[in-house]
Amino acid sequence: MSHYPPSILNVIRHLSRLPGIGEKTAERLTLHILRAPRRDAEGLARSILNLKEKARLCESCFSLSDSDICRICGNPARDRGLLCVVENVAGMVAIERSGAFYGLYHVLHGVLSPMDGVGPDDIRIRELMTRIQAGEVREVVLATNTNLEGEATAAYIADRLGGFGVKVSRIASGVPMGGDLTYVDQVTMKRAMDTRHAL
Amino acid sequence: MSHYPPSILNVIRHLSRLPGIGEKTAERLTLHILRAPRRDAEGLARSILNLKEKARLCESCFSLSDSDICRICGNPARDRGLLCVVENVAGMVAIERSGAFYGLYHVLHGVLSPMDGVGPDDIRIRELMTRIQAGEVREVVLATNTNLEGEATAAYIADRLGGFGVKVSRIASGVPMGGDLTYVDQVTMKRAMDTRHAL
Repeated sequence: MSHYPPSILNVIRHLSRLPGIGEKTAERLTLHILRAPRRDAEGLARSILNLKEKARLCESCFSLSDSDICRICGNPARDRGLLCVVENVAGMVAIERSGAFYGLYHVLHGVLSPMDGVGPDDIRIRELMTRIQAGEVREVVLATNTNLEGEATAAYIADRLGGFGVKVSRIASGVPMGGDLTYVDQVTMKRAMDTRHAL
Repeated sequence: MSHYPPSILNVIRHLSRLPGIGEKTAERLTLHILRAPRRDAEGLARSILNLKEKARLCESCFSLSDSDICRICGNPARDRGLLCVVENVAGMVAIERSGAFYGLYHVLHGVLSPMDGVGPDDIRIRELMTRIQAGEVREVVLATNTNLEGEATAAYIADRLGGFGVKVSRIASGVPMGGDLTYVDQVTMKRAMDTRHAL
């Protein structure tokens, strides 16, 4: 790489720090940026600067936003009585994409993980309790991931919410749609069987 | 993607224009940049702006440089009588990495390709002739790629250089080092056999 001038090496070095971008890919991307119109390269650079300037956490649900309150929390058409708890923004985006949810979100920014020293005070559970105490929420849908930590976090929150008079639900787990039963792991299969419902 | 605020969408959009970066990867990279320290994100953005500002073509060999004359052309330790002709900067970097060449380069920025309408005046052949006419060069090593266009371009340049009294050579083609003969294609095998040398 040292055969490139410093201005080029510098971009290669910065790009190769991104996850999944090796030195070879960074080199290829840098040479592409070099050949691309100046407007495109400047647009990319400016968008990154703007990102760090603008993007912040919504003060209500802690998802990503360009303003103090995100577009979902600020949307009067959303059902404010329905609150979906997710681990992170990626989870929220996945649910939004499905189009199956029309309430508000609460992003925990983590899961309980005693092994890693992550306790209830390290993720946004206190803020969740404050929102519940405000009294507007009828139902909390726990949509943490279905792995060990996600399940434990859902169980912990369900327990904390007992006595608040809100309905607490958990997203269903089971055989993926369009999936072949042959390829479904045992734990998922057991869950699908245990939570079977009448037709 | 529309579930992200504009500042984030904007970075995703710009990154996904880069070659080999799909929308999913762009999303992942953007969320990484968002979480990364501000210094890193700004460093990346600045390095890109600086790239378009600083990087240019060396006035002598047309490789990439941060100054009018690149570090190789400006290096008094390089043999100015030895000139290696390459298609592009990537070819030059590949040869530099091998450590096997101590002369100067000439980057054509393309190959002859009548099908694509690329003739001798579209790549830096005129500038090459000017350098040869200056009289300092003893030997020209043609290191264009070994595909159809690269071979044709090497043959064309060799022809043009006849009568200038310079030695003209071509990099060797053959079985890659450490390669198994089973996996060598016929054309390479034929070339390796035709250009065999005494030991």
